[in-house]
Parts: sequence; structure tokens; C-alpha cells
Amino acid sequence: MAERKIYRKLVAVDDVLPTIEKYVPLEPLGEVEASLQEAVGRVLSRNVYAPTNYPPYTRSLVDGYAVISEDVAGAYEDRPKELKLVGTVKTGETVLLRIGRGECAGVSTGAVLPYPADAVVPVEYTHARPGVVEIYRSVAKGENVDPAGSDIAEGEVLAWRGDIVTPSLAALLAAVGVSRVHVFRPVRVGVVPTGNELREPGERLEYGQVYDSNSYLVYGVARMLGADARIYPRAPDVLEEVEEAIHRALGENDIVVTIGGTSAGEEDLVYRVLSSLDPGLIIHGVKQRPGRPLAVAVHGRKLVLGLPGFPLSCLLSINLYLAPLIAKLQGARAHESRYIEAVVPVPMRGDPGSRVFVPCVIVERGGNYTAFPLAGHSGRVSALHLVDGYLVIPESDESLPSGSRARVLVSPFWRPFEANVIGSHDPLLQEVVAGLRSRDRVRLVSTGSLAGLQAVKSGVADVAGTHLLDPETGEYNTPFLKSLGLEGVVLVRGYLREQGFVYREDSVSSFSEVIEKGLKFVNRNAGSGTRALIDHLLKAEAGRLGVGFEELRERLQGYTWEVKTHEAVAYLVARGVADVGVAIRYAAERYGLGFTPIGFERYDLVVRKDSLGKQAVRELLDGFCSEGRRRASETRGYAVDSAMCETLEF
Amino acid sequence: MAERKIYRKLVAVDDVLPTIEKYVPLEPLGEVEASLQEAVGRVLSRNVYAPTNYPPYTRSLVDGYAVISEDVAGAYEDRPKELKLVGTVKTGETVLLRIGRGECAGVSTGAVLPYPADAVVPVEYTHARPGVVEIYRSVAKGENVDPAGSDIAEGEVLAWRGDIVTPSLAALLAAVGVSRVHVFRPVRVGVVPTGNELREPGERLEYGQVYDSNSYLVYGVARMLGADARIYPRAPDVLEEVEEAIHRALGENDIVVTIGGTSAGEEDLVYRVLSSLDPGLIIHGVKQRPGRPLAVAVHGRKLVLGLPGFPLSCLLSINLYLAPLIAKLQGARAHESRYIEAVVPVPMRGDPGSRVFVPCVIVERGGNYTAFPLAGHSGRVSALHLVDGYLVIPESDESLPSGSRARVLVSPFWRPFEANVIGSHDPLLQEVVAGLRSRDRVRLVSTGSLAGLQAVKSGVADVAGTHLLDPETGEYNTPFLKSLGLEGVVLVRGYLREQGFVYREDSVSSFSEVIEKGLKFVNRNAGSGTRALIDHLLKAEAGRLGVGFEELRERLQGYTWEVKTHEAVAYLVARGVADVGVAIRYAAERYGLGFTPIGFERYDLVVRKDSLGKQAVRELLDGFCSEGRRRASETRGYAVDSAMCETLEF
Repeated sequence: MAERKIYRKLVAVDDVLPTIEKYVPLEPLGEVEASLQEAVGRVLSRNVYAPTNYPPYTRSLVDGYAVISEDVAGAYEDRPKELKLVGTVKTGETVLLRIGRGECAGVSTGAVLPYPADAVVPVEYTHARPGVVEIYRSVAKGENVDPAGSDIAEGEVLAWRGDIVTPSLAALLAAVGVSRVHVFRPVRVGVVPTGNELREPGERLEYGQVYDSNSYLVYGVARMLGADARIYPRAPDVLEEVEEAIHRALGENDIVVTIGGTSAGEEDLVYRVLSSLDPGLIIHGVKQRPGRPLAVAVHGRKLVLGLPGFPLSCLLSINLYLAPLIAKLQGARAHESRYIEAVVPVPMRGDPGSRVFVPCVIVERGGNYTAFPLAGHSGRVSALHLVDGYLVIPESDESLPSGSRARVLVSPFWRPFEANVIGSHDPLLQEVVAGLRSRDRVRLVSTGSLAGLQAVKSGVADVAGTHLLDPETGEYNTPFLKSLGLEGVVLVRGYLREQGFVYREDSVSSFSEVIEKGLKFVNRNAGSGTRALIDHLLKAEAGRLGVGFEELRERLQGYTWEVKTHEAVAYLVARGVADVGVAIRYAAERYGLGFTPIGFERYDLVVRKDSLGKQAVRELLDGFCSEGRRRASETRGYAVDSAMCETLEF
Repeated sequence: MAERKIYRKLVAVDDVLPTIEKYVPLEPLGEVEASLQEAVGRVLSRNVYAPTNYPPYTRSLVDGYAVISEDVAGAYEDRPKELKLVGTVKTGETVLLRIGRGECAGVSTGAVLPYPADAVVPVEYTHARPGVVEIYRSVAKGENVDPAGSDIAEGEVLAWRGDIVTPSLAALLAAVGVSRVHVFRPVRVGVVPTGNELREPGERLEYGQVYDSNSYLVYGVARMLGADARIYPRAPDVLEEVEEAIHRALGENDIVVTIGGTSAGEEDLVYRVLSSLDPGLIIHGVKQRPGRPLAVAVHGRKLVLGLPGFPLSCLLSINLYLAPLIAKLQGARAHESRYIEAVVPVPMRGDPGSRVFVPCVIVERGGNYTAFPLAGHSGRVSALHLVDGYLVIPESDESLPSGSRARVLVSPFWRPFEANVIGSHDPLLQEVVAGLRSRDRVRLVSTGSLAGLQAVKSGVADVAGTHLLDPETGEYNTPFLKSLGLEGVVLVRGYLREQGFVYREDSVSSFSEVIEKGLKFVNRNAGSGTRALIDHLLKAEAGRLGVGFEELRERLQGYTWEVKTHEAVAYLVARGVADVGVAIRYAAERYGLGFTPIGFERYDLVVRKDSLGKQAVRELLDGFCSEGRRRASETRGYAVDSAMCETLEF
């Protein structure tokens, strides 16, 4: 018990797994016998030897005539040899036919080679007459013959302990008659949600409560790694209940995961239970940021992991610790966290003594990856759907300068996107992307026009969709490229979209009406083209009414309620959560809403010049100018004019 | 019915899917509602909107004191502000606490922010006394506060139709209370094995029969793509039985797969059944090699695919056609076949008018991939476990010159290996590789010493293990590097291994004894170091006996029976399939066999110099010289001398 309770001493990131290994061997937990079908995707726990030869009998590799090669020596198109046909062997026939000198037998591909034939003449070099076959080509001894055992000899090692049973390996094993194999058994992972604030998705929330989401993160990763995973009912913040829940889960699993411990009371409870295990808490805190409050306890040969509660911290801890633990305990070879090298686009501050992990979006440019930090705090749950990995600032570094290279920890399921299309959402653009050959290499993120232009400028985005009106000039988009100082980009003129008020019942044609009727408005996010339009209209209306913009804005119920897409506006109005909004006609029609036109706006694409070499970007632009143009000309609420697909360089 | 029966007209590779699409829309088949847990890994069939805000209430982002920011303006270490403590809010509490001017309240991370507090001072910048808190830092309005709805607004589109439900997305959806989603339903794939020659793995084979293995290939790929797959019992070669089997499978599946049709009789049966469907056979033969005999039939909106029977052809057709069909019908975005670009290492012949696919092993060297063709005919089933992809020779090309670049179709599950270690098998080397951090990026292939050296020379291998004795000089390995003309390589001296006769019962110490006792010998493969030793001993013994080498060889029962590893020799002797063989002591002991020493041999590594920059290769060499040395000095049958890890340049 000397090693018990190494408490409140922070452990280095690289020491977490070795520390655990001092208490629990990180070796496969055991094996199970499985049919080939069940074994696909699992890891072999034993070497597999061939119980038979392959091919199991000497066979023909072609359709043709089995011959004794000496009998057809010198045969050629203009001097064929004639052989007597003594029979035919079809594939699957188990009779060993005999031929004599000067004789031959018809054979199908895969048929048993007659004895003592030593070659097969392909049917296209023969001409069969009744009882006789003319042979137009000589064959070498062994030609088109596949001798028994020539591919695999009985006893050969076909696969090693540790190999993954791929579909190909399963087929190989089947070919020599192996029907069952031994594989490492799946790890059992039990998630015990704790915390009075948690509710299950589907339950009703009180103000002050949140839905449990981290449990699904753990469950999903464990399942995708092939583990058996299970989410237990939430344990209330009572010592006995937490104790019982953790012990029950320990009885049924190899690894138990608890999450959070954000409230002081709860933290006490989970940690008191973990400390009471035998040998108990072995790690409590890691020299990293975020994710410092990791707790690891051992009970016999079982593990309890207490993961941090903020979504991006929880995901990080899963990638760093839980995923490798599951993989090792299942005997998987690919148990290491995956790192790539990436360029640091902006200076980043480290935390000497701790390893810092900066959530980031990974972008490929000129054969290099760049890791753009994700904005916002680690409590953001929406970032879960965007984060590609975590840029690593080593313990030794005060900071990483812009342009330097750093390691990035990527998620176990990360795949690089070739192109990022970030900006204003447009349903037709989405359909164009969905139809691309390269669509799984294109990431489409809706942030609004202005954020899209900024993303193109910084290099996160290859392409941005934008529809920003400059009220001074009445021009769309180009004035903003200039004022934002965008260089090295091309603007591709797009189609026109009809914007208007969307409503469920009462027709609305001005903001005054919305205010007078006391309707609930839903706004668009600042920086979006539609928001710019809304503010422009409000200012104009304020001018007409002789009141201030701020004043009018305050009278508009819901002005501060912002959503990021036309779809969301239409959805909220259709569901009755809001009464009116501003969106494109396409969204109104899709949700069966009323629509009062405000006017047409231009939806353009802005493309980085250094992205024009990317195949996915070229396909997207081609698709926009062909499929996009076609759809726009056929879809109500859209229009195409002669400017479409003109390009302007900046 | 005008389009019915486009029969015997070969279709171009790129026209296969478009032809199918004329008859059957390649769109998702339908949707099912699933819990978040069930939905992980599936594809959303509908957009998902946020039903609530996130965070659902305004909360603190830190442990500290909620304040009205104006009250702490100007607070600093040497001039703290004192606030009255009016209460504490823990996470999960649903009461909205109120504070007044000059007051504060303790809050945990995640707790509801009291009203009208607008900022939180972290606990580390405070000092609490009874009823009073000293604040040492000013905070800006909104600091450490996470306002309700600031991350996700109700109605926001969280994920789009077509998005994969990753663990992260599942967690994001859970966070806003979504508990069930609509996903595209899995495709049902039924495999109907046909052909009299087929037997199930586990059944007894007659001479002329083979085990069904392709069914497992189809099953495995379908399952790994998320489809529901099922292998039906084999249909015998009788029209009514094949007809019934296919119709039954059509009733229960979306896609039915039959394989083979190698025998003329069988082909007739399957094609007669496919032709009788409505509209029937729509493709019969594709302009490609291998894999020409693809058949596609349509019955209503269901598909029957007749795949070619040779393993590498079957795998190719699965990659080219079946996998994209499954993906499209499930609505997956990643439905395209994956191609990479690779260097062509030797001239390759095309087949103008047809697209040629050459099975290959992909090797990374200097940032480029090279696609080395796999030797042997397409009937080889062992190649299934090696093939990385298929190099594509376009329809227009007579040949591809050495050094040119070509596209390579890689398998849906292909991952690049960083290092190929090809050559003589050694159990300690295998353990060294298994212990490497980079072990999942290292491919270990046992081919024997000579083939390993040739693989290093051609560039397929980065490293080869070799133990080839030159009887003239008594030297190991170095004479062969010279005679094979290996340049740009380094030889790393390895450990010594004890070779000897291995046997089950009767002790054996010479080949004469094996022959006299009439024992069944199992030989090693030509080109292996052990085979060179065997032939060397046989020649010496023939000299002593005054007989020819050939003669002695013929008297040795089993000389022509070759396996590729020490493990296989020991396994066969232990099982009683053979009585005696030559292997290393390690293998004998592992299988509890008798062992008569012949002598020690040297097991060296040969490494390409241009591979020394690869991390996996460096780790392997480090491991060989540390872990390998340690194990060799501790393991009976191995020895280490002072030469170990000396290097010689060639």
C-alpha cells in the first residue's frame, strides 16, 4: 500500500499512462472465440496457421484444354497439333480424370487438372471438332496451372496475434477453411453521470440545469473503438448514491468514467468514493491546460477515470487517455494518439511547466497544415462539431511564434478537409456542395458573410459566400473586400436571392408593423448579410418615423435574439417560437410561410487565389457556375443575371 | 422496357454506376429514427435544429464571486474593494439569487449567475472573511460569464442532412436536449454463394472443392460500411435452386451479391436467373482487367451484382462498385472510391480500350508513394492480406513507363505504412516491432532472407532481416549484399540464433537419420536462410555418403513441402503433420519440441539509407539494438556478441 494516494501532486502528461501501468497492466484483458463474421474489425489474440493448402487441389487458371505440354511443343497458328478429346472437367467436379499421350481434356477455370496433364491451353488458342481439338499454341510446363499448396502451405502463419481482422483477412482465413478465430475481447466501459445539474436529453430542464452531453462523447468514442459502452442513470449528489453507482459500474465494467466534478460538493463526493477504492486515487491533476482536473483511481485491476466537464477539455482527455487505454486493453496496434505537424498562424502563449492544448481547425495549404485556434472559451459545446485537434505548446515553451511549426493532436476519427467554405449560408450552395465528387472533402460552415470574409483573409477559409450590402453605394460585397483589406482573392459573381419578411399568419411588410402588432421577431447574427439588411431597413424606418435607431431597436421584440441561418429563422417562425423574421424566399417556401419581398441581393463567392489549385475548390466553382446557375434559374426566389460568374481580382 | 437487356455489350468502368442509376436512383433508401447512442456512425437524414438554447441559463465560467462590475472598478491588489457576501450558488441549484449594489455571491463553475450580477471575479483574486469578500481585481462587464443562448440559439441548425453522427456531434446534440434523430437506414446486403465447388469454412473438402471465401470479403466490407450483411446458404447448381435462392435474397435485401460463375454451367444458371428479372440484366461485362465479368441486374428497385470469383478481382469490384453503391444508398458523403497518386517503379503494360488495375503494395519514400506490383496471378488468395490498392493504367495507354506517375485505387480501409520490414522471420524482431510506439505504421512480412534483400534493392522494403550463409567463406549476409549488387544500404549486425533439428519424439541429428527412420520432413522456402543451411547440410552429407545431392534430396520425404517461417515448421511438427524440420531453438521450445543443435547463425538487418530518415525505421533500429539486444541475451537459443549493432555501409 506504499503507493496509495499520490494525492494533489500534479502528474506530467506523458506520465499519466505509465503511472496507470504501475498499478494495472495495460495488456489485452482476455480473448474470446468468434466466428469470422463476428471477428471483422477485431484484433487476433493468437497466430493463425493454415490448416489446409491453398489451392486445395491442382487446378486450371483458365477455360481451355488440359494437355501434356510435350504433346503441343511447336504448335502454332499455321501448324496446329491435334489432340484426342477424352473428357471435360467442370469446376466443382471431384473426379480425377486421366489422359494419355496425344490426348486432352476440356477444363473450366478452377477445375481439377486431369492426371498427368501439366499445362492448359486457353480455349481461344484452340478449335474443337467432334472428339478432336486443334491446338494453335505451345504451352510451357506449368502454364495456366495452379498447383495445390502453391499459394499457401498447410501450417503457414496466415496472420499474427495483434493483426486486425480486415475483410481481406477474413476472406483469406475462410479460403483455407478457418471458420473461428480467437480475438481480444472488447473492453467494457461504463459511464456514470454525476452532478445534480445534469438531466437526460429528452427530460425537462429547470433554469440552472444542463443536459448531460459528455456521456455521449465517451460512449461514442468507446463504441467507435469497438468497446462495449453503456451510460448508467445519473447518480444524485449523495455520498451513498455515488458510491453505490460507481461500485455497481465497477462490478460490470473494466473502465468506469465519471465526468465533471465542477461543483465543490460533487467533487468531494466523487473523490471521496475514488479515495476509498483499493488502492484508490493514483492521479489527481495533470500538468496540462485545459483538462488539469483529471482523476484516475484503481480498484483491483479496474480503472475509474474522472474526466473534466467542459466539452473541449473532456474530448481532449478522451483522446489523450481514454482512447489509448481502450485500445491497449483490446490489444489494438493503433493505440497511440495521432499527431500531425502544422504551422502556427498567430503567436500563441504557453504555460511553462504545463502542456497547453489549443483547440484548432486544421487547414491544408500548399502541402502544409495550418492549425487555426478556435475562438471562445472551453465551455462552448458548439465547438465540438468544428474542432479538428489540439495544437500542442510544450511545457518548456513560453510561447510559439507565428510561422513556427507545432504538433497537433488530432482526434482518432479526424480526416483532413481539402477545402473550407465558411461564410453566409445558402441552400443552393449547399446543394451544389452535396453534389460534388469531392463533397466529403469540403467542410461547409455557416457563420455569416463578414466572418466568412475574415476567414478567407486569415486563411482558415478557402471560399466564403457573402451578400453584404453597402448602403452608401448600393453595391454588394466589393466595398467590403476593399475595406477589410482582402488581397490575393477572387470574387466570383453569383446569383440573386429574394429577401423578405417571413411570417406564419399576419402578413407583415415593415418593421413598424411588426412593432405595432407586438409580434415576436427573430434576428440574424451580427456580421451576416441579412443582419446588415435588417439594420439598414430599421435605420431607414427610424429616419421616416423621426426616432433614433436605438429606440426603434428596443421596441422591436426579439432584436437581441440572433440565429445564424435562413433555415433557423424559418424553422422558428414555422414552429411558432417567433412570429416574424427576415430570410430568403426559398426558406419561407420550404416551411410554407408567408413572404413579403424586400428586394433582391447578390450572393457572391470570394476565393483565395492560393486555393484555386485545390481540386475540391475547382470542382466547387465549376459546380457553382453550372449546377448552381441552373438551379438558381429554376428556383423561385432566385434569379440569374448576365454578371453571374464574372470574376474580379483583389 | 426499351432499355431492357443491354447484353454482352461491355461497359466502360466510369459508366457502370451511371448505367445503374438509369434504372435505380442511387439515393438513400429511407430513414429510421434512432437514439443518439444508436445513431453514432450513421448519417443524418434530416437537418437538426436546436430545440433549446445553450447554455440554457446564464452561468459562471469559473469558481469565484458574482459581482456587479461597476462595484469593483479600480480594485487592485493594494487597494481591494470589499463586498458584502449575500449567499452562495452551487452548480445544479435552480434558485435565482438576487444581489444588490455593493454585494456579491459565491458561485461555482457552471452555477446560475445571480441577478443582476454581470461578471465573476475568480476565487484566486479574492479573500473571504465572514460575511465579507475582498476583491483584488476589477472585472469587465461580462467577464467569466456565459450568457444563456450565447453558444447556441434555439432554432439554430446544428447539423445538416448528410452529416455523420460523430461522437462529438452526438454530444453536441445531447447538450441541447436532442435525444433522438433521423438517420438513413442501413442498406441490406445479402450474399448468395453459388457453385458446386464451394464448401463452408469448417466443412470437409473433397479434392476439387474450395472453401467459400469471397462471401466473407463482401460481408466484411459491407459491415464495415455500416450495412446489414448476411451470407445465405450456398445454392447448388440447379436452376430452380439458384432461382429460389436469389428471389428469397431479393425479398429480404436491397442488394444481392453472387460471386463467381467460373464454371460454364453455373454461369448459365446465374445469368438465366438474372435475365429473368424485371428489367433484368443491365450490365454484363466491363472494359477492365481484371474483373471483366461483372454482371448487374435490376429487379424492381433492387440490385443483383454478380462479382468475379478470383479474390483480387472480387476485391477490386467491391471497391469500384459495391462500396460506392452501399455508401450512396445509405446517404454517406464519402461515397467515392479513394485514389492516391503514386510513382510507377517498373514499366507496366496496359490494354488499350480497357482499364487495367494492377494489384500493388504502396510504399512511401521521400514524400512520394510508389506502387509496386504484387507478383503472381489473380487466383492468389494470400495476396488479399498484402494488397494496398490497384495501380490504374487508363484505357488510352499502351503502357506506363518506369518513373511515371499513376493513380492508385486504394481500399476503403487502407492506411499507409511508414515502413515495410520484409525478409526472414524472427520472433524477437517481431516482439521488438510489437513494442514500438510506431508499431501500427510498420508492416512486417515474412518472405525469407533472399526475397527480403531483393525487396530492399527494389525499394519495396525499408528493412530486411536476413541470415544467409555463404558456405565458401563461412560469412553471413555480406557476400550476398555484394553478389546481389545492393547499394545505398547499411547492414546492422544483429544477434546469433541457434538452429537445429526440431522433432516431436525420436531424436534426430542428421539428414541420414531422417531418411533411415522414414520420417516426414517439412522444408523451408527457397531463398530463406534456413533453406540455404538445409541444402548446405544435405550437400555435405551427400558428399560424405558418396551420392549425388539430387539423389539424397529425392530420398528425403517432404523435401518439396515448403513453409515460410520457423513457427510454421514447429507448428507442423508439434501437430504431427510432419515429424522433423530445421528451425531455431526458440520455436522448438515454444512448441515443446526436441532440439538437436546444428550451430549458430547471424541474424542481421539490412536498411536502405534513404529510409533512415523515417521515424518508424529509426525507432525500429533503436529497439533492435536495445530491447532486441536485451531479449537476445536473456532468451535461450539466442546470443549476443560484441559485433552486435556494428554497421557496415554498402
